[in-house]
Amino acid sequence: MMTDANRLSDMGLGADDAICAAIVHGAADAIVLADRDGAIRLWNGAAERIFGFRADEAMGRSLDLIIPEKLRARHWEGYREVMRTGRSRYSTELLSVPALRKDGERISVEFTVSLLSGADGAPSGIAAILRDTTERRRRDQELQKRLAALEGRKP
Amino acid sequence: MMTDANRLSDMGLGADDAICAAIVHGAADAIVLADRDGAIRLWNGAAERIFGFRADEAMGRSLDLIIPEKLRARHWEGYREVMRTGRSRYSTELLSVPALRKDGERISVEFTVSLLSGADGAPSGIAAILRDTTERRRRDQELQKRLAALEGRKP
Repeated sequence: MMTDANRLSDMGLGADDAICAAIVHGAADAIVLADRDGAIRLWNGAAERIFGFRADEAMGRSLDLIIPEKLRARHWEGYREVMRTGRSRYSTELLSVPALRKDGERISVEFTVSLLSGADGAPSGIAAILRDTTERRRRDQELQKRLAALEGRKP
Repeated sequence: MMTDANRLSDMGLGADDAICAAIVHGAADAIVLADRDGAIRLWNGAAERIFGFRADEAMGRSLDLIIPEKLRARHWEGYREVMRTGRSRYSTELLSVPALRKDGERISVEFTVSLLSGADGAPSGIAAILRDTTERRRRDQELQKRLAALEGRKP
């Protein structure tokens, strides 16, 4: 599973870790890392674009920054469970939730999560890779409405 | 846009770059990096799961490994264009293509790409973050068929 550092470094980009940093910061998907307390510790350029908060506005803040109020209790219940047990039910799953932008707009995001561990093996944070799926979701709902109307039922 | 290394390192995970490496290798989305010649230089655990090739089978191979034959010419045309100009038309776009698994199965993937540059500023590779969307695509096509049938037209 590990990459070959020699092969990577001959790309002129330095060591494997530095290349991974370039991938994370330059990704077109939002990549966000929160520590065990749920405070934001990494916020890449695409997260700035998708959520409207600059990294310096997001860093150190709670993930509540982008979680609609009604969903926060459920979110933190799951989050604390993962931090306590070191296990996530969602390790290969695509999650779909509403999220908030800085301008107050509610968007739809799909994301995957992965658990990070400290040197002691204990869970130290959760990384998420997120895509804005607002437009696709709208199209899907439109389609479901048309289908329901044609089938003579409520959507 | 840059993260605060001090804040990150107090998570017990080391420096920012090491955390990014943990994010990339542990991500639930496939993350693949190809160099300027299109040879695979990074292939994370989720890429192994989604495409069926282990990292040691994929590393150093051409991206043709997962590109259906009919799409290769178009793929490499675009790839070389990006490497020559240092610009990608797809910097914030979600791309959707068929892809090949090791077992020969054809799957659907959605992915974003980002361009990596070497110390000299020249393009040195392209990173992609990919999700298997085969199941959703099938459901969408099913829905379109039902809709077409109800509307008395061909899907």
